Amino acid sequence: MKIDAIDLFYLSMPVVTTAGDGSQDALLVRARAGRFTGWGECEASPLTSIAAFICPMSHGACQPVSNSVLSQPLNDVADITRIAQHVREKSTDLLQAAHIFSGIEAALWDLLGQRLQAPVWSLLGYTTNYAKRPYASVLFKDTADDTFATAAALRQQGFTAVKFGWGNFGRGSLGQDEQQVEAARSGLGSDSLLMVDAGQAFGTDIDSATRLPMLAAHNVYWLEEPFISDAYEAYRQLAHKNVGISLAGGEASHTCNQAVHLMNLGGVKFIQVDCGRIGGVAPAFEVAQQANSRGITFVNHTFTSHLALSTSLQPYAGLADHGLCEYPTSLQPLALAITDNHLLPDCNGEIHLPDTPGLGMKVALEKLREYLLNIEISVSGKILYTTPVLSS
Amino acid sequence: MKIDAIDLFYLSMPVVTTAGDGSQDALLVRARAGRFTGWGECEASPLTSIAAFICPMSHGACQPVSNSVLSQPLNDVADITRIAQHVREKSTDLLQAAHIFSGIEAALWDLLGQRLQAPVWSLLGYTTNYAKRPYASVLFKDTADDTFATAAALRQQGFTAVKFGWGNFGRGSLGQDEQQVEAARSGLGSDSLLMVDAGQAFGTDIDSATRLPMLAAHNVYWLEEPFISDAYEAYRQLAHKNVGISLAGGEASHTCNQAVHLMNLGGVKFIQVDCGRIGGVAPAFEVAQQANSRGITFVNHTFTSHLALSTSLQPYAGLADHGLCEYPTSLQPLALAITDNHLLPDCNGEIHLPDTPGLGMKVALEKLREYLLNIEISVSGKILYTTPVLSS
Repeated sequence: MKIDAIDLFYLSMPVVTTAGDGSQDALLVRARAGRFTGWGECEASPLTSIAAFICPMSHGACQPVSNSVLSQPLNDVADITRIAQHVREKSTDLLQAAHIFSGIEAALWDLLGQRLQAPVWSLLGYTTNYAKRPYASVLFKDTADDTFATAAALRQQGFTAVKFGWGNFGRGSLGQDEQQVEAARSGLGSDSLLMVDAGQAFGTDIDSATRLPMLAAHNVYWLEEPFISDAYEAYRQLAHKNVGISLAGGEASHTCNQAVHLMNLGGVKFIQVDCGRIGGVAPAFEVAQQANSRGITFVNHTFTSHLALSTSLQPYAGLADHGLCEYPTSLQPLALAITDNHLLPDCNGEIHLPDTPGLGMKVALEKLREYLLNIEISVSGKILYTTPVLSS
Repeated sequence: MKIDAIDLFYLSMPVVTTAGDGSQDALLVRARAGRFTGWGECEASPLTSIAAFICPMSHGACQPVSNSVLSQPLNDVADITRIAQHVREKSTDLLQAAHIFSGIEAALWDLLGQRLQAPVWSLLGYTTNYAKRPYASVLFKDTADDTFATAAALRQQGFTAVKFGWGNFGRGSLGQDEQQVEAARSGLGSDSLLMVDAGQAFGTDIDSATRLPMLAAHNVYWLEEPFISDAYEAYRQLAHKNVGISLAGGEASHTCNQAVHLMNLGGVKFIQVDCGRIGGVAPAFEVAQQANSRGITFVNHTFTSHLALSTSLQPYAGLADHGLCEYPTSLQPLALAITDNHLLPDCNGEIHLPDTPGLGMKVALEKLREYLLNIEISVSGKILYTTPVLSS
């Protein structure tokens, strides 16, 4: 069969704020081939990503992503590999290409899974789908009291691992940061895993290392993204301080190599990949294999819907030793509405990927219509994109 | 003064082909503050880059680039630094941000130069503006005979350095590549510099090293971009083959760090930065300083207009030991039409940057109107972008 259509749906909450909350909008991708349909999601600016799909060609190495995807054969996994190679070659100079292709690639895996009647993790070669221990992923609150209350509530819900991030962390004094971390630890209790996400707050400033002993004192399991994503030397220096806290990072990777560099050069002990940015499932799977061979722990990065969550778990579903998973717990209604089914913790508090074909998620078309934005892009009077009808 | 407006103009040839010719379209940027106007150019997909400027916010770290630029104070160089920092922080997750900001940043330098009545190279702190030796930058032709004729014609025009690239190089047999290189060398004569640009043809395949002795036998000065841009380990291994040919690369860098990694880890001897992609003049200047301190030669990457050419020379204008400059010689009429003045070789065959304020180039508004595309982008019926009037 051939890829007959790729349709892009820009969904948004009515109000979008400057909070570090990636669930306020979504770019949903529908792929069609023959009688099959697959769905994927980009973790990216929707409008910019749509433009990268339909833009006029600038030259041979700056073609729209549509040129590498539409009408291509899709019968087995090798076809997805080949299409990704086309995108790399024809859209070398189109920076946004990796972000739009990420959702498309996931939709192609979902579609192929429907056709081959197999879950994506099985198409990747895994024979077992190991349960993951979810860590609740939430933002630091404005006050330490509110952070405490959030932590306590999550513990009450049964979470034994929680990551707090962004907010004002790293942007004020060490004392203010410590109040927040202390509140989080105190709300969680001493027996839970606590992780901290700095959201690149330190840029490339190695002096941020002064925070490490404070984090270690509160038994923080990892410090995530202290620096901008390609400051490998800053990561390396901080990693070698060796004060009892490991570094994590990688969510900004838009190539497999970038994640590999962060492992090899940056010395992270946890590599976090977002399938909605790195180019989809296959490059994330490659990173997971490389992490596994290096004794580094692979962790999904996910802060949007359960369609994205399912996608993000496929690349390391079969790796028993990589048992944590990021699990957003404060999603906007839009992100929850994207799928009819959700990946909920079982009685042991663990998350299981579906055994059903593809990504195993059912997109909830009816519920999404209220969030759908109508986009129109025209060049010299010719309409290059208009929002398609949202249907199955 | 404050930045009152940033206007974006998508210019295109009537027909755009898959040739590796970046001069087939252009995204021109006009910045206005007070009574001053500055111009810049992105080396990027125009439509996608426009979307990155005006897209609705997705969250705090995925804001449109406009949010970091419009209404910002612009009185001195520190303001440009501050605005660039805003873009990094507010558009961390907007991949295309670096590409659109590149042209905006150049326009801000041009504008600041008008206001301070100083050329950009002088605002960067250089006191001397050294002439550069241009190397003609052209594509390999379909046949070795045509490549020979092109080389002979360029020699006839007085060029003593020529780079051939792309076409089918690296995509066929070693014998076919050698015919092309032999034809180029033969057309140029033995006393000219000949460089070869593989255009990432080898992906990450180290076996491409089998080409190196052939290139060395024809006295090729450098091999450019054998690999995808972040395959630092492949670069390093090839660089260490030490068969008498140096590696060059860096044009795809969209952060300063990426270019630095290619120097530190990849072992390139020539670092090539495109101001229209890396975020503008300031990050390219930073790369030039770092190259200079490492004994690596900085070279501009430019394949579009003379506005882009002038921009690309500013970052290393004051570095006497970095004497080569890429000089496209087969530009499409559009690219030549962008400026009224052009940077032409003097009687010694050398290129001089203007001593006039800003980038020193006069944008040719009248000539450009025939190439201007009318773009309209709307979200939920609200027009977010429509092509502005092209005027001074």
